[in-house]
Amino acid sequence: MNHKSFHSHHSPFGAFASFTIGFDGSPGGFAQSLSRPGQARQNVYVGYRRGESQRWRLLPFFEPPQTAEVLYTGEAAVAASVREDGRFSTLTSRDYRRMLGAASDTWRADDERFGFSLLSPFERVPDPRTLDRGEARRLLAPAVPAWIEYDNRQGKEPVELIFGIGDPDHPFRPLSDSRADLAGFALGPACGYATVPDESVELRQGFDVFEPKFQDHRGLHVIGGESAILFTIPAGERRRFPLVMGFFQSGVVTTGIGASYAYTRFFAGLEDVLAQGLSTHAEYQRIASERDAELNSSGLDEDRKFLLAQSIHSYYGSTQLMWNDDGPLWMVNEGEYRMINTFDLTVDHLFFELAWHPWAVRDTLELFVERYAYRDNLQVNDSESIRGGISFTHDMGVMNHFTPSGRSSYECDRLTGCFSHMTMEQLLNWVLCAATYAEAAGDLNWLKHYRQTLLECAESLHRRDHPEPQKRDGILKFDSERCGQGGSEITTYDSLDVSLGQARNNLYLAVKTLGAWVLLEKAFQRLDEREAAEDAGATADLLASTLAGKVEPDTGFFPAVFEDGNRSRILPAVEGFAYPIYLGYDDAIDPEGRFGPLLKLLGRHIAQALQPGVCIDRESGGWKISSTSTNTWFSKIALAQYVIRRLYPEALNDAARAADRVHADWQRQAGCGKDALCDQIDSVTGESRGSRYYPRGVTAWLWLGEDPLPDTRTQEKPARESASLTQ
Amino acid sequence: MNHKSFHSHHSPFGAFASFTIGFDGSPGGFAQSLSRPGQARQNVYVGYRRGESQRWRLLPFFEPPQTAEVLYTGEAAVAASVREDGRFSTLTSRDYRRMLGAASDTWRADDERFGFSLLSPFERVPDPRTLDRGEARRLLAPAVPAWIEYDNRQGKEPVELIFGIGDPDHPFRPLSDSRADLAGFALGPACGYATVPDESVELRQGFDVFEPKFQDHRGLHVIGGESAILFTIPAGERRRFPLVMGFFQSGVVTTGIGASYAYTRFFAGLEDVLAQGLSTHAEYQRIASERDAELNSSGLDEDRKFLLAQSIHSYYGSTQLMWNDDGPLWMVNEGEYRMINTFDLTVDHLFFELAWHPWAVRDTLELFVERYAYRDNLQVNDSESIRGGISFTHDMGVMNHFTPSGRSSYECDRLTGCFSHMTMEQLLNWVLCAATYAEAAGDLNWLKHYRQTLLECAESLHRRDHPEPQKRDGILKFDSERCGQGGSEITTYDSLDVSLGQARNNLYLAVKTLGAWVLLEKAFQRLDEREAAEDAGATADLLASTLAGKVEPDTGFFPAVFEDGNRSRILPAVEGFAYPIYLGYDDAIDPEGRFGPLLKLLGRHIAQALQPGVCIDRESGGWKISSTSTNTWFSKIALAQYVIRRLYPEALNDAARAADRVHADWQRQAGCGKDALCDQIDSVTGESRGSRYYPRGVTAWLWLGEDPLPDTRTQEKPARESASLTQ
Repeated sequence: MNHKSFHSHHSPFGAFASFTIGFDGSPGGFAQSLSRPGQARQNVYVGYRRGESQRWRLLPFFEPPQTAEVLYTGEAAVAASVREDGRFSTLTSRDYRRMLGAASDTWRADDERFGFSLLSPFERVPDPRTLDRGEARRLLAPAVPAWIEYDNRQGKEPVELIFGIGDPDHPFRPLSDSRADLAGFALGPACGYATVPDESVELRQGFDVFEPKFQDHRGLHVIGGESAILFTIPAGERRRFPLVMGFFQSGVVTTGIGASYAYTRFFAGLEDVLAQGLSTHAEYQRIASERDAELNSSGLDEDRKFLLAQSIHSYYGSTQLMWNDDGPLWMVNEGEYRMINTFDLTVDHLFFELAWHPWAVRDTLELFVERYAYRDNLQVNDSESIRGGISFTHDMGVMNHFTPSGRSSYECDRLTGCFSHMTMEQLLNWVLCAATYAEAAGDLNWLKHYRQTLLECAESLHRRDHPEPQKRDGILKFDSERCGQGGSEITTYDSLDVSLGQARNNLYLAVKTLGAWVLLEKAFQRLDEREAAEDAGATADLLASTLAGKVEPDTGFFPAVFEDGNRSRILPAVEGFAYPIYLGYDDAIDPEGRFGPLLKLLGRHIAQALQPGVCIDRESGGWKISSTSTNTWFSKIALAQYVIRRLYPEALNDAARAADRVHADWQRQAGCGKDALCDQIDSVTGESRGSRYYPRGVTAWLWLGEDPLPDTRTQEKPARESASLTQ
Repeated sequence: MNHKSFHSHHSPFGAFASFTIGFDGSPGGFAQSLSRPGQARQNVYVGYRRGESQRWRLLPFFEPPQTAEVLYTGEAAVAASVREDGRFSTLTSRDYRRMLGAASDTWRADDERFGFSLLSPFERVPDPRTLDRGEARRLLAPAVPAWIEYDNRQGKEPVELIFGIGDPDHPFRPLSDSRADLAGFALGPACGYATVPDESVELRQGFDVFEPKFQDHRGLHVIGGESAILFTIPAGERRRFPLVMGFFQSGVVTTGIGASYAYTRFFAGLEDVLAQGLSTHAEYQRIASERDAELNSSGLDEDRKFLLAQSIHSYYGSTQLMWNDDGPLWMVNEGEYRMINTFDLTVDHLFFELAWHPWAVRDTLELFVERYAYRDNLQVNDSESIRGGISFTHDMGVMNHFTPSGRSSYECDRLTGCFSHMTMEQLLNWVLCAATYAEAAGDLNWLKHYRQTLLECAESLHRRDHPEPQKRDGILKFDSERCGQGGSEITTYDSLDVSLGQARNNLYLAVKTLGAWVLLEKAFQRLDEREAAEDAGATADLLASTLAGKVEPDTGFFPAVFEDGNRSRILPAVEGFAYPIYLGYDDAIDPEGRFGPLLKLLGRHIAQALQPGVCIDRESGGWKISSTSTNTWFSKIALAQYVIRRLYPEALNDAARAADRVHADWQRQAGCGKDALCDQIDSVTGESRGSRYYPRGVTAWLWLGEDPLPDTRTQEKPARESASLTQ
């Protein structure tokens, strides 16, 4: 089984761009704002040749190349078909080793002598408003550093290395035309690659970069769709050459809210980006090595290290930092769907973003209040409605278009499944994100500023339980009138079966509501809102008690939905406890504490669920988030693992623990690997069923706080303060 | 045989953009700077439905659509396969009529009741430096107006019309989000379509625009990759609705010479373009109708009308007007190759551009002098070279990248065929374009400004004949040293066989040289450069005499190359006379005049060549520009026809005349039609062999000056002054 063939994002911070390669036999390359790796169609030529008489040995990042020469010559004599490949052969998975690190992706071959690495040297990014120019250029450069090397110390003749791109429809231009200090090629003003000019460096461009038939005065053919940098390492030497992949999109690229990439404030254009990438190359290497070392020393097993690394790569590829007259504008794109700041992803990215760029959480929450909040009515019956309260849209738009105020791109009317409204879900997400941000970042001023919004959220939660206080038990009973005739609210688990999709009387959502009340209680205490704090605490207790009563006496399971005799078993039953755990609210997770009875019942639920045939897939051994669906989501498995390993380590039987390997293999094989990190996965086959090229996997970031299991407070605090991968 | 299935460019002036549709069963749509129609992958839905119970009847501009819903729902229940098409059927070529006009492309169906038309209302564009804002907005708007209509006066129930786009990878956004006066959709800031909001107009967006399952508060689903405008015409009414397709590319898009689109100076963005297109729609319709009427009344037969119309469409699609600190920057892209201002195309676009935007010729010539001129040495033998003279590069770059000063993207060293240098060819092209521009536009001041350049060109021509005056006979004998070791110059006919490709001793190039000396003689007279004028006249006479001696006594043919016993027969033998004819230099084309003997010999050559088996393809009946190659070029056929119909009408036997239909059918069938106007064509099969999506066909513009055959001077003058299609 080949475990090295998977695409990965290799991305700058906030550029919504990626140099995507890694899946065997597949082109890729420069991907600007694409929804799938398959949309980048560049052949990427990376490899070495030990002497001119030898074949090139190339990593498998291309399809058999064709020559475009015939388009010009019109002569049948030049075959339009595949070029004979006598000049190169492809390294198979047996020939190379691949190591995906937190901030790097490295391929080695030829007994480790050959190496190629793409770096993603992420750092803690302070509020962009506070960056000086030097910091901004280092942190926001839309560049992916890389290197290529060969150890020819034992060699008898020179070795050549190649890094090149082939795309007949899009010929690159020689960068030497514009800057003497850049050796490389670019596609218009938009993207390109470069190294430092050097006597060991040679440029090539033509219809066939391995055997250029036509050469102009400097040895290139600028109409040719293949370009490359060649490097020569004399016998007896070992050399590593720096490379940089750069992106640049100028002008206003978003609509609805018009904005330009933040980096355009600090860079004059692509050449400037590439030059910066080369001049800062050593520092980027150092930073990437630090991130790699932190993950490597983390204590996670190799499978979980891989899963977290792959998730981090895909998260950064989805980030987009814009700027307009109002200042910075933060966006995370929802993978292949490219919805903007989908709120049920924001709440999952929360933990990673708090460690690395907490202002992004804050800014997103503020934009939800300013533009994407709404106040609704609740459906009582077909003809009657009553006042509801505040909530927030599912997302802020799609594919660089911000939808109008108060409206998402996703939510539609008169539906009971996918594409219906998520009013309760997003209300909880604002509360959870806001309280977690303020507490983790210690930003009490911000919390004070949003005091009224928090109070309004509490009131809205209450009214959705029941407008009449005496009829409340803590659980959502009403749908937003936004759902329209016959419609009802859904949750983020919309595409699963009804066990998770329906919002009303939903176990997952009810426990998440409990988490929200716990956080509200603490937040109101911080704000000296004693009455509200007491109310929140009382509501949490009420809800916990209500929930405890929902267990099935005959089975010891909680039903996924408290109606119609539903008997699905779900792991996200405990998701709502992730927030109190993360924030170190020990009283909320103390098995002998206020929620002790509920926690014990949930513990039994989880222990029974983590069995083959229930929430462990009998065939694959992977975790299923619902016993009645084969659609399982990696990001949510990771989140459930965080809670379960902390609260119910005894539930982690051998089968449950062995699943780490299964989850990693899903991502490392073609079913998911062809689309970088995938979230929705068929638990039987390991094939992705949606949510490809997806950022949400960074919930796995929480794993770093679970192994081993010391006191939560001392364990979590440093992570939020020092932003290193080893907490 | 289906003669309606061919792609056409539908393009604004100078936007390097096209809304390309027309080839049966093929998607297309918004194409920004693409090299082939096949790169635009939007399904275009255009059609009508007579009552809700009926199927939609759609023009064949799409592939069977698939639904993207499954990507979101992850459920196998929603088939990923082709949608059942019970809701629409496709109009076949038997069901619709298509009329391509000079400035319009119209489809009619349902007994003429249904109509859809894309307009290309081109006008005479004055020097962009002189345009006021209103003119600039009308003339430079990157917009393609269109209309859709139905005559429901006899109908009993409402009829619906649809215009929509389907591209799951690129969902459009509703324009109503940004402007209340636009009903339609846009793809980011880059392109879109709109009509005027009206109670008969409905918007749709979703995964399936014919049966949208999911609707938000306003009936759309913004994540859906299909969008459309629906129009309703009540029974008893006839209505035509305006549509506009718009493009917008902001920022610097060229490199080497950085520049932005000129229209960005006059438009704030896409919405502004669309609004302008709608508010000016009536005027655009009027202008398009005028252009159509002028061609229709021209006296050309239907086949030649079609060929000219199709050529004009592809020419405009290749035009690109930029602007930077130095002012306007004119570019014509070389079709699928996208080389910039290829000089051997400039000389062929000359006649069309002089009629419609003569400053474009002037500006291009100036840029060739300022940046793309060079002075070379000539190869004497392998080890010796001597001073040559001025010439110009083949092109100015490729795909929005301007190559460095003095260098083209195309020309390579040490070659004897394609991709070699074209030093002599481009020297002639500068002389011919400059003298023709100055004479036709009456711009003597410009000619004076370039006096030294013209003198330098004459000297360079002489030295390439022979550095020693006494050894000159007028014919090129030396290759530029730029060709490098073993290399030799080629001509624009590079991809044909050696009969046309080699520059030295080349019949085509020698007659073109004669044309250049004739124009130089007149130009120097205008400049009062008497000595130079006399020298040019004497050289022309010498060359004519030399040429007359090249005829083969045994056959009456001229050989294509005066060496190695070449016996290819070529039609471009007379191409060089196009310029004196066009400029009305009667003394140069008088059969009893100074070149009488040569003209008579060439007449016999042409009459013998225009025979099946020589330069008329035995199988297809089409013209072959060389008897020994099946690669024939439409633009050059058109140019040869212009000369032949004027000088040798008696050579136009029945077979030669019947070929118009053949040439038109080549472009109207799949072999060429799938790529809009194609230039290089296999004369046997009618399949394109290169030069697809190509602007050069506008040499056919000259046809308007050949039928009937009155005095040249009075016939040509008005064309250059009034710029109407009927001269």
